[in-house]
Amino acid sequence: MFTLDPAFEGGSQALADLELCAVRLQLDARFPWLVLIPRVEAAREIEDLGAGDRSRLMEEIVLAGRAVRAMGDVLGRPVFKLNVGALGNITAQLHVHVVGRRRDDPAWPGPVWGVVGVTAYPADELAVVREAALRALDVTP
Amino acid sequence: MFTLDPAFEGGSQALADLELCAVRLQLDARFPWLVLIPRVEAAREIEDLGAGDRSRLMEEIVLAGRAVRAMGDVLGRPVFKLNVGALGNITAQLHVHVVGRRRDDPAWPGPVWGVVGVTAYPADELAVVREAALRALDVTP
Repeated sequence: MFTLDPAFEGGSQALADLELCAVRLQLDARFPWLVLIPRVEAAREIEDLGAGDRSRLMEEIVLAGRAVRAMGDVLGRPVFKLNVGALGNITAQLHVHVVGRRRDDPAWPGPVWGVVGVTAYPADELAVVREAALRALDVTP
Repeated sequence: MFTLDPAFEGGSQALADLELCAVRLQLDARFPWLVLIPRVEAAREIEDLGAGDRSRLMEEIVLAGRAVRAMGDVLGRPVFKLNVGALGNITAQLHVHVVGRRRDDPAWPGPVWGVVGVTAYPADELAVVREAALRALDVTP
């Protein structure tokens, strides 16, 4: 049975369920950022998924990229480059980060992973960003 | 027409051609590390690939993971965790890093991207690592 690692509760909030993945919104206003967690028991590496789920994961990465772009647009900070990463060095449960990057973001051109600090979303901004992401994911809130 | 960005020549060397991707071996003995570059003209984001190529890329990522594990094994430093990343903030041409990580590597648990310095492979070690990677990719040298 799939159970979400409670470590994800810390820095992100549930956004939607796609066919394969739980999608979470990373609570850091510096970067439009979604995390995809395949709902597959004990998966730690991409190779732990079957071939069908791997293809599905790839399609959900593309979809999440679209949602991240929509988040950037609604904030008036269009995404210049997508960054996609599956690391899992700290939280082992398989998850894929999809992050929208800009040349004026505080980590550019380095990766966002390992960057210290967090900037909280103002409540109204969070609502707007969630809505934009959900619309792009084509998931009814 | 696909042309490899000359930026890749700096830190890596050609290893093999898979169905979709050129595979390059990153010349940093600190981490068993391959780079996959889809041979698709003007691709910058995963979404720039067609659905078939996206699935193929996912399968080649899994294959590269196997090769990275083989590289770690042959060096007596088995891989503990795979890190997969498509960033492209510095070199825009679409490419995917597949890196083998260990708890005793110099960047753990942070990402390898943005870590300064490089450790050159001793020539004999490089030959052994190349051979192990090629065997795992099932590509005749």
